[in-house]
Amino acid sequence: MTSVGPRSPLLLAPRAGVVHRIPPATGVAFRVARGQTLRVTDPLGHQVADLFSLVAGEGGEALSSGRSIDYADKLWLSSGDVLHGSRSTPLWRIGRDDVGRHDLTLTPCSREMFVKLRGDDGSHPSCQDNLERALATLGVAAHRITCSFNIFMDVRFDPATGKMTIAPPASRAGDCIELVAEADQLVGLTACSSEVTNDGQLKPIDFVLLG
Amino acid sequence: MTSVGPRSPLLLAPRAGVVHRIPPATGVAFRVARGQTLRVTDPLGHQVADLFSLVAGEGGEALSSGRSIDYADKLWLSSGDVLHGSRSTPLWRIGRDDVGRHDLTLTPCSREMFVKLRGDDGSHPSCQDNLERALATLGVAAHRITCSFNIFMDVRFDPATGKMTIAPPASRAGDCIELVAEADQLVGLTACSSEVTNDGQLKPIDFVLLG
Repeated sequence: MTSVGPRSPLLLAPRAGVVHRIPPATGVAFRVARGQTLRVTDPLGHQVADLFSLVAGEGGEALSSGRSIDYADKLWLSSGDVLHGSRSTPLWRIGRDDVGRHDLTLTPCSREMFVKLRGDDGSHPSCQDNLERALATLGVAAHRITCSFNIFMDVRFDPATGKMTIAPPASRAGDCIELVAEADQLVGLTACSSEVTNDGQLKPIDFVLLG
Repeated sequence: MTSVGPRSPLLLAPRAGVVHRIPPATGVAFRVARGQTLRVTDPLGHQVADLFSLVAGEGGEALSSGRSIDYADKLWLSSGDVLHGSRSTPLWRIGRDDVGRHDLTLTPCSREMFVKLRGDDGSHPSCQDNLERALATLGVAAHRITCSFNIFMDVRFDPATGKMTIAPPASRAGDCIELVAEADQLVGLTACSSEVTNDGQLKPIDFVLLG
């Protein structure tokens, strides 16, 4: 495998077996075919990657965090679990998972979130912006991006009060998760832009399509 | 206050102060104006109501469960908390809340869910279908309905394993929640169709607009 980088374009046409590096606080879009495996690797450790995907076409079925939690019957999906679309179609089956802790409850970090919660001036990069820009190159309207599979993100809730804690990602350098595509899809993938979520440092994310 | 029922049309134009009854396993759509209060009451007890709302217009901002959880910093929103839209606009501020336990993690129950999880033949009513039909009368495309505020629904997750438990709604007969509209919105509201979620019996939901 070879590595492409350091800067990636918004739209990629990944060749099977070629590792692509998503620079810190950016995102890319690409197509996957049913049966392909998407391996997402945290090259340096403690870095989140937000994934959103949907079936092409007007009103095409999109990833649904709520359906995925419902069918898996648990909050944290891992090897053997399936990410579902809004019409209950299986979109991804989780294969190898070195980490076992990912989030489906939160939406991608957004420009507005950095303004409201961190006092930013509106210029901070965000996963929402990066997903929107990348997926726009494939004709996806911004308002379709309503949730994400937040790979390596560790979000916990106090069982008595529901209070949220975002812990540093448990992923170590080289840890990966493999997602087997159960349908042809358009995919957006980011190296997350939130300092708080990523143990204080924004780092790259690697991915490769297999098969 | 007077009560309208037992059967409601899909589209309502509620007059302030008039209580509307949503028959079991059905749903309605209506408009709310900023500043109005929507009171949702469980008339018989242990019954869930699914709410979805969005701002009118192409790509209008829609309720976002993930943003709402993020800004509230907790899984279970109650009095004083705010339901946010996908662009971080406050859509509803929760006022009076007799119950204090509602869900934002699951999507509305769907026809496909009853087939996959309950062995249904595809004819079971569902909140997703009821929201889609009702909101279609206001021009809302089905694929916009990607999450819901599941009023009175009690969903818990084991803090160690993430295993989900859906407990009977804690609401007793006459319990209500009041939502103050922070923006003009199109609203879909159901009396939930899932036997498992509603303590074994599908019951009506009442609502009234105040102000």
